[in-house]
Amino acid sequence: MRMTAQEARRRLAAARVARLATVTSAGQPHLVPVTLAVDGDRIYTVVDDKPKTTRDLQRLRNLRASPRVAVLADHYDEDWTQLWWARADGTASVIADPVAMAAPIQLLAKRYRPYQDRLPGGPVIAIAVERWTGWSAS
Amino acid sequence: MRMTAQEARRRLAAARVARLATVTSAGQPHLVPVTLAVDGDRIYTVVDDKPKTTRDLQRLRNLRASPRVAVLADHYDEDWTQLWWARADGTASVIADPVAMAAPIQLLAKRYRPYQDRLPGGPVIAIAVERWTGWSAS
Repeated sequence: MRMTAQEARRRLAAARVARLATVTSAGQPHLVPVTLAVDGDRIYTVVDDKPKTTRDLQRLRNLRASPRVAVLADHYDEDWTQLWWARADGTASVIADPVAMAAPIQLLAKRYRPYQDRLPGGPVIAIAVERWTGWSAS
Repeated sequence: MRMTAQEARRRLAAARVARLATVTSAGQPHLVPVTLAVDGDRIYTVVDDKPKTTRDLQRLRNLRASPRVAVLADHYDEDWTQLWWARADGTASVIADPVAMAAPIQLLAKRYRPYQDRLPGGPVIAIAVERWTGWSAS
Protein backbone atom coordinates (compact mmCIF):
# COMPACT_ATOMS: atom_id res chain seq x y z
CA MET A 1 0.00 0.00 0.00
CA ARG A 2 2.83 2.33 0.86
CA MET A 3 4.57 3.62 -2.26
CA THR A 4 8.30 3.63 -2.81
CA ALA A 5 9.97 7.03 -3.05
CA GLN A 6 10.67 6.26 -6.70
CA GLU A 7 7.02 5.53 -7.44
CA ALA A 8 5.81 8.62 -5.54
CA ARG A 9 8.19 10.76 -7.58
CA ARG A 10 7.04 9.11 -10.81
CA ARG A 11 3.40 9.88 -10.01
CA LEU A 12 4.10 13.48 -9.06
CA ALA A 13 6.17 13.90 -12.23
CA ALA A 14 3.22 12.64 -14.30
CA ALA A 15 0.56 14.69 -12.47
CA ARG A 16 -1.02 17.59 -14.34
CA VAL A 17 -1.89 19.41 -11.13
CA ALA A 18 -0.72 19.28 -7.54
CA ARG A 19 -1.39 21.28 -4.40
CA LEU A 20 1.24 23.40 -2.74
CA ALA A 21 1.04 23.88 1.02
CA THR A 22 2.96 26.65 2.73
CA VAL A 23 2.66 28.15 6.21
CA THR A 24 1.99 31.81 7.05
CA SER A 25 4.12 33.65 9.59
CA ALA A 26 1.18 33.17 11.99
CA GLY A 27 1.35 29.38 11.55
CA GLN A 28 -1.74 29.05 9.35
CA PRO A 29 -1.43 26.52 6.52
CA HIS A 30 -2.08 27.88 3.02
CA LEU A 31 -3.07 25.82 0.00
CA VAL A 32 -3.15 26.48 -3.73
CA PRO A 33 -3.30 24.22 -6.79
CA VAL A 34 -0.20 24.48 -8.97
CA THR A 35 1.15 23.27 -12.28
CA LEU A 36 4.50 21.55 -11.83
CA ALA A 37 7.56 20.02 -13.44
CA VAL A 38 9.74 17.45 -11.69
CA ASP A 39 13.45 17.22 -12.40
CA GLY A 40 15.27 14.67 -10.25
CA ASP A 41 14.70 15.66 -6.65
CA ARG A 42 13.42 19.10 -7.55
CA ILE A 43 9.92 20.32 -8.22
CA TYR A 44 9.37 23.56 -10.08
CA THR A 45 6.25 25.64 -10.15
CA VAL A 46 5.83 29.17 -11.39
CA VAL A 47 3.74 32.22 -10.77
CA ASP A 48 2.02 32.52 -14.11
CA ASP A 49 -0.15 35.10 -15.76
CA LYS A 50 -3.54 33.73 -14.84
CA PRO A 51 -5.39 36.67 -13.31
CA LYS A 52 -4.54 37.20 -9.65
CA THR A 53 -5.11 40.02 -7.24
CA THR A 54 -1.43 40.73 -6.91
CA ARG A 55 1.97 39.29 -7.75
CA ASP A 56 2.98 39.61 -4.11
CA LEU A 57 1.17 36.33 -3.57
CA GLN A 58 0.47 34.79 -0.21
CA ARG A 59 2.59 31.75 -1.16
CA LEU A 60 5.62 34.01 -1.74
CA ARG A 61 5.06 35.92 1.49
CA ASN A 62 4.83 32.59 3.31
CA LEU A 63 8.08 31.31 1.81
CA ARG A 64 9.85 34.40 3.13
CA ALA A 65 8.66 33.44 6.62
CA SER A 66 9.32 29.68 6.23
CA PRO A 67 10.63 27.73 3.26
CA ARG A 68 9.00 24.44 4.35
CA VAL A 69 6.48 23.14 1.83
CA ALA A 70 4.49 20.05 0.91
CA VAL A 71 3.23 19.14 -2.57
CA LEU A 72 0.47 16.59 -3.10
CA ALA A 73 -0.98 14.84 -6.14
CA ASP A 74 -3.86 12.44 -5.74
CA HIS A 75 -6.36 10.41 -7.68
CA TYR A 76 -9.99 10.05 -6.66
CA ASP A 77 -12.36 7.45 -8.03
CA GLU A 78 -15.70 6.18 -6.74
CA ASP A 79 -14.05 2.76 -6.85
CA TRP A 80 -11.86 3.15 -3.80
CA THR A 81 -9.51 0.38 -4.93
CA GLN A 82 -8.26 2.99 -7.44
CA LEU A 83 -7.31 5.67 -4.92
CA TRP A 84 -3.74 6.87 -4.59
CA TRP A 85 -1.76 9.89 -3.50
CA ALA A 86 1.86 10.97 -3.72
CA ARG A 87 3.53 13.67 -1.66
CA ALA A 88 6.79 15.57 -1.66
CA ASP A 89 8.07 17.34 1.45
CA GLY A 90 10.87 19.80 1.09
CA THR A 91 12.27 23.29 1.17
CA ALA A 92 11.46 25.97 -1.36
CA SER A 93 13.46 28.83 -2.74
CA VAL A 94 12.12 31.63 -4.91
CA ILE A 95 13.94 32.34 -8.16
CA ALA A 96 13.24 35.76 -9.61
CA ASP A 97 16.34 36.21 -11.75
CA PRO A 98 15.34 35.91 -15.43
CA VAL A 99 18.47 33.91 -16.37
CA ALA A 100 18.03 31.44 -13.50
CA MET A 101 14.30 31.12 -14.26
CA ALA A 102 14.80 30.19 -17.91
CA ALA A 103 15.51 26.45 -17.53
CA PRO A 104 12.67 25.71 -15.06
CA ILE A 105 10.26 27.71 -17.22
CA GLN A 106 11.29 25.64 -20.24
CA LEU A 107 10.55 22.44 -18.30
CA LEU A 108 7.12 23.79 -17.43
CA ALA A 109 6.45 24.98 -20.98
CA LYS A 110 7.22 21.48 -22.29
CA ARG A 111 4.44 20.11 -20.11
CA TYR A 112 1.80 22.84 -20.52
CA ARG A 113 0.78 24.19 -23.89
CA PRO A 114 -0.53 27.54 -22.58
CA TYR A 115 2.98 28.27 -21.30
CA GLN A 116 4.34 27.66 -24.82
CA ASP A 117 2.01 30.30 -26.19
CA ARG A 118 2.97 32.71 -23.45
CA LEU A 119 5.93 32.07 -21.14
CA PRO A 120 4.99 32.71 -17.53
CA GLY A 121 6.50 35.79 -15.97
CA GLY A 122 7.56 34.15 -12.73
CA PRO A 123 8.98 34.07 -10.17
CA VAL A 124 9.73 30.35 -10.07
CA ILE A 125 9.39 28.34 -6.88
CA ALA A 126 12.09 25.64 -6.76
CA ILE A 127 11.50 22.91 -4.21
CA ALA A 128 14.36 20.71 -3.01
CA VAL A 129 12.49 17.53 -2.10
CA GLU A 130 13.75 15.72 0.97
CA ARG A 131 11.09 13.03 1.14
CA TRP A 132 8.86 11.39 -1.45
CA THR A 133 5.99 9.37 0.03
CA GLY A 134 2.79 7.89 -1.25
CA TRP A 135 -0.05 5.49 -0.77
CA SER A 136 -2.03 3.37 -3.16
CA ALA A 137 -5.16 1.37 -2.36
CA SER A 138 -4.17 -1.50 -4.64
CA MET B 1 -12.65 35.54 -11.28
CA ARG B 2 -12.79 35.64 -7.52
CA MET B 3 -15.53 33.44 -6.13
CA THR B 4 -18.05 34.53 -3.55
CA ALA B 5 -17.86 32.75 -0.19
CA GLN B 6 -21.21 31.15 -1.00
CA GLU B 7 -19.94 29.76 -4.30
CA ALA B 8 -16.69 28.50 -2.74
CA ARG B 9 -18.71 26.70 -0.09
CA ARG B 10 -21.03 25.23 -2.71
CA ARG B 11 -18.08 23.86 -4.69
CA LEU B 12 -16.41 22.36 -1.64
CA ALA B 13 -19.72 20.82 -0.59
CA ALA B 14 -20.03 19.18 -4.01
CA ALA B 15 -16.40 18.02 -4.20
CA ARG B 16 -15.74 14.28 -3.90
CA VAL B 17 -12.21 14.82 -2.62
CA ALA B 18 -10.31 17.68 -1.02
CA ARG B 19 -6.89 18.15 0.50
CA LEU B 20 -6.39 18.84 4.18
CA ALA B 21 -3.37 20.89 5.21
CA THR B 22 -2.17 20.91 8.79
CA VAL B 23 1.11 22.07 10.34
CA THR B 24 3.50 19.95 12.42
CA SER B 25 4.84 21.21 15.75
CA ALA B 26 8.08 21.94 13.85
CA GLY B 27 6.24 24.21 11.40
CA GLN B 28 6.25 21.81 8.45
CA PRO B 29 3.05 21.77 6.38
CA HIS B 30 1.41 18.36 5.99
CA LEU B 31 -1.00 17.38 3.23
CA VAL B 32 -3.41 14.49 2.75
CA PRO B 33 -6.41 13.94 0.48
CA VAL B 34 -9.68 13.54 2.39
CA THR B 35 -13.30 12.72 1.83
CA LEU B 36 -15.56 15.40 3.26
CA ALA B 37 -19.05 16.54 4.12
CA VAL B 38 -20.00 20.20 4.43
CA ASP B 39 -22.75 21.31 6.82
CA GLY B 40 -23.19 25.08 6.96
CA ASP B 41 -19.88 26.54 8.02
CA ARG B 42 -18.50 23.20 9.14
CA ILE B 43 -16.50 20.64 7.22
CA TYR B 44 -16.31 17.09 8.50
CA THR B 45 -13.78 14.49 7.57
CA VAL B 46 -13.08 11.19 9.26
CA VAL B 47 -10.26 8.78 9.87
CA ASP B 48 -11.61 5.77 8.04
CA ASP B 49 -10.59 2.16 7.78
CA LYS B 50 -8.50 2.37 4.63
CA PRO B 51 -5.19 0.73 5.52
CA LYS B 52 -2.82 3.06 7.35
CA THR B 53 0.33 2.56 9.30
CA THR B 54 -1.26 3.71 12.53
CA ARG B 55 -4.35 5.43 13.87
CA ASP B 56 -2.17 7.97 15.63
CA LEU B 57 -2.01 9.77 12.31
CA GLN B 58 0.24 12.70 11.59
CA ARG B 59 -2.81 14.87 10.93
CA LEU B 60 -4.11 14.19 14.46
CA ARG B 61 -0.71 14.81 16.05
CA ASN B 62 -0.53 18.09 14.12
CA LEU B 63 -3.96 19.19 15.31
CA ARG B 64 -2.84 18.70 18.90
CA ALA B 65 0.01 21.14 18.21
CA SER B 66 -2.08 23.61 16.15
CA PRO B 67 -5.75 23.46 15.18
CA ARG B 68 -5.28 25.71 12.12
CA VAL B 69 -6.17 23.98 8.86
CA ALA B 70 -6.88 24.65 5.19
CA VAL B 71 -9.03 22.52 2.89
CA LEU B 72 -8.82 22.79 -0.90
CA ALA B 73 -10.87 21.42 -3.76
CA ASP B 74 -9.85 22.15 -7.33
CA HIS B 75 -10.61 21.27 -10.92
CA TYR B 76 -7.93 20.78 -13.54
CA ASP B 77 -8.56 20.71 -17.27
CA GLU B 78 -6.20 21.09 -20.20
CA ASP B 79 -8.54 23.90 -21.26
CA TRP B 80 -7.43 26.46 -18.72
CA THR B 81 -10.65 28.45 -19.06
CA GLN B 82 -12.21 25.59 -17.04
CA LEU B 83 -9.89 25.82 -14.03
CA TRP B 84 -11.22 26.61 -10.59
CA TRP B 85 -10.41 26.09 -6.94
CA ALA B 86 -12.23 26.61 -3.66
CA ARG B 87 -10.64 26.81 -0.23
CA ALA B 88 -11.78 26.82 3.38
CA ASP B 89 -9.56 28.16 6.16
CA GLY B 90 -10.49 27.38 9.71
CA THR B 91 -9.90 25.67 13.01
CA ALA B 92 -10.25 21.95 13.58
CA SER B 93 -11.30 19.94 16.56
CA VAL B 94 -11.03 16.18 16.91
CA ILE B 95 -14.16 14.30 17.93
CA ALA B 96 -13.50 10.83 19.32
CA ASP B 97 -16.65 10.36 21.38
CA PRO B 98 -18.87 7.79 19.60
CA VAL B 99 -22.10 9.69 20.36
CA ALA B 100 -20.70 13.00 19.11
CA MET B 101 -19.25 11.29 16.02
CA ALA B 102 -22.55 9.74 14.94
CA ALA B 103 -24.10 12.71 13.12
CA PRO B 104 -20.96 13.71 11.14
CA ILE B 105 -20.40 10.07 10.20
CA GLN B 106 -23.98 9.89 8.92
CA LEU B 107 -23.37 12.96 6.75
CA LEU B 108 -20.26 11.31 5.32
CA ALA B 109 -22.00 7.97 4.80
CA LYS B 110 -24.74 9.74 2.82
CA ARG B 111 -22.08 10.97 0.39
CA TYR B 112 -19.82 7.91 0.14
CA ARG B 113 -21.19 4.44 -0.49
CA PRO B 114 -18.20 2.59 1.02
CA TYR B 115 -19.00 4.26 4.34
CA GLN B 116 -22.55 2.91 4.13
CA ASP B 117 -21.22 -0.62 3.84
CA ARG B 118 -18.86 -0.06 6.72
CA LEU B 119 -19.11 2.99 8.97
CA PRO B 120 -15.70 4.56 9.53
CA GLY B 121 -14.24 4.14 12.99
CA GLY B 122 -13.14 7.72 13.44
CA PRO B 123 -12.11 9.98 15.00
CA VAL B 124 -13.90 12.77 13.15
CA ILE B 125 -12.14 16.03 12.35
CA ALA B 126 -14.64 18.91 12.57
CA ILE B 127 -13.50 22.14 10.96
CA ALA B 128 -15.09 25.45 11.89
CA VAL B 129 -14.59 27.42 8.68
CA GLU B 130 -13.77 31.08 9.13
CA ARG B 131 -13.16 31.94 5.49
CA TRP B 132 -14.39 30.49 2.20
CA THR B 133 -12.47 31.69 -0.85
CA GLY B 134 -12.13 30.59 -4.43
CA TRP B 135 -11.08 31.41 -7.93
CA SER B 136 -12.51 30.49 -11.28
CA ALA B 137 -10.91 31.13 -14.67
CA SER B 138 -14.22 31.94 -16.33
